[in-house]
Amino acid sequence: MKRVSFQGERGAYSEAALKSFFDDKTETTSCTTFAEALKNTEDNTTDCCVLPIENSLEGSVGESNDLLLSTKLNVVGEIYYRIRHCLIGIGSIKDTDTVYSHPQALGQCRQFIQKHSLKTVPSYDTAGSVKIIKDLNKTNIACIASKRAAEIFDVPIIHEGIEDNTNNYTRFLVLSKEKNDEIERSKTSIIFSVKHEAGALHKIINEFYQYKVNLTKIESRPNKDTPWEYNFYVDFEGHQDNSSIKEMLEKLRDNSSFLKILGSYPIAKLD
Amino acid sequence: MKRVSFQGERGAYSEAALKSFFDDKTETTSCTTFAEALKNTEDNTTDCCVLPIENSLEGSVGESNDLLLSTKLNVVGEIYYRIRHCLIGIGSIKDTDTVYSHPQALGQCRQFIQKHSLKTVPSYDTAGSVKIIKDLNKTNIACIASKRAAEIFDVPIIHEGIEDNTNNYTRFLVLSKEKNDEIERSKTSIIFSVKHEAGALHKIINEFYQYKVNLTKIESRPNKDTPWEYNFYVDFEGHQDNSSIKEMLEKLRDNSSFLKILGSYPIAKLD
Repeated sequence: MKRVSFQGERGAYSEAALKSFFDDKTETTSCTTFAEALKNTEDNTTDCCVLPIENSLEGSVGESNDLLLSTKLNVVGEIYYRIRHCLIGIGSIKDTDTVYSHPQALGQCRQFIQKHSLKTVPSYDTAGSVKIIKDLNKTNIACIASKRAAEIFDVPIIHEGIEDNTNNYTRFLVLSKEKNDEIERSKTSIIFSVKHEAGALHKIINEFYQYKVNLTKIESRPNKDTPWEYNFYVDFEGHQDNSSIKEMLEKLRDNSSFLKILGSYPIAKLD
Repeated sequence: MKRVSFQGERGAYSEAALKSFFDDKTETTSCTTFAEALKNTEDNTTDCCVLPIENSLEGSVGESNDLLLSTKLNVVGEIYYRIRHCLIGIGSIKDTDTVYSHPQALGQCRQFIQKHSLKTVPSYDTAGSVKIIKDLNKTNIACIASKRAAEIFDVPIIHEGIEDNTNNYTRFLVLSKEKNDEIERSKTSIIFSVKHEAGALHKIINEFYQYKVNLTKIESRPNKDTPWEYNFYVDFEGHQDNSSIKEMLEKLRDNSSFLKILGSYPIAKLD
């Protein structure tokens, strides 16, 4: 059975996502930071780890994207996981005047919070906020987290599905020391930076076009060493071991000042 | 004299940035949210507002990028502002065991925090954390914020320049109801989305190349209505009133499913 590390308390969305990908009985290791989740896999304490990469409402998760730049692990999978927030607490909705959660979760339930005139208290993570309000044990204090977190900490769910927008998905990547063999419906993730000259990005995009390779994502992120130089995070359809893709990657390497292939993995579907 | 709105408490980095751009005597209006800062300008309560758009270490500021999509204001300027964090409190560094600040500021001073084994408490904004620790009035509790915030709330600075990486700049945009006339060293910001077909992004990038227009930024952000469709945020050199740029923008419009021109403004320099 696979052992998989994730960042967050038990019941975090990351844990729920990885169980939907592997198996509900997967042995999971809860870590304090994203870096620790990766390190567990590098040390062979776990076989894989999962990192949240982007959310359909909030955009990219900066810290995990930065870690992709430095990790030696390979990306071997992607997971799309629907985020459904619950209001969790020991009181009723009428008793509740204060709500704890991660700032992103609070932001995603803005309309619900305004409608019920709740005071918000930011906390480090969603599942951790269940732990906090359980310890506080007050009928007026609730939190926002997953159904699973409510079950694990054994605190009642006051209201389910309180998010403003139901198009709320997080995309996770699965990382491992292994590599995937070529299968037909694959996606590959790379990071590159372009030379400092006019048309440099165009030359790279043009290669994708010439090789008829479909880009599924392109995002620029600032390079931490040189202000306002960018690294480009690109996902495209195809496997790095495919001969045509291999040839294209060689051309990209010639036209970029830096190129890292993160890995190839089966394309996941939205639920 | 200009009246300018910004998000945050007095002494926030946004306020310092706008004063470096306009004039130290500019009349500033502190707002609770980014949306409120924009609304002030839409209502003519202020002439302009500033929004932090991206940070050289952390990447894009999601909420302000989303607001660019919907605002009717024009982008009329950009500001690069160097972020220098201070440890602020009434005790000495030896007394201090706990530090309050915005999670991003805490993240940017990770090494300093670890070296001094400080417990971190996330708070809503940096300048607001000075207010909190002033009220707490304890020698063991400090916060991280700007020098200016320490001065405004009259709390001593324990240590200046505690950020891990000195390449720490935030880029702000200035928005107004007015528009800028064409000047030579201009930049233009646009948002577009591409049609759902192979090579759609390539066609757009190719236009920039054909018109010899230099892209200074390209970033994809998820479209909130349709999961995993993206809007592209692009900055390029040149002014929207220039005849060649006008022609190119028309071609971009033909090749995109949506195009919004945010505005043209003088290119700012890094300090």
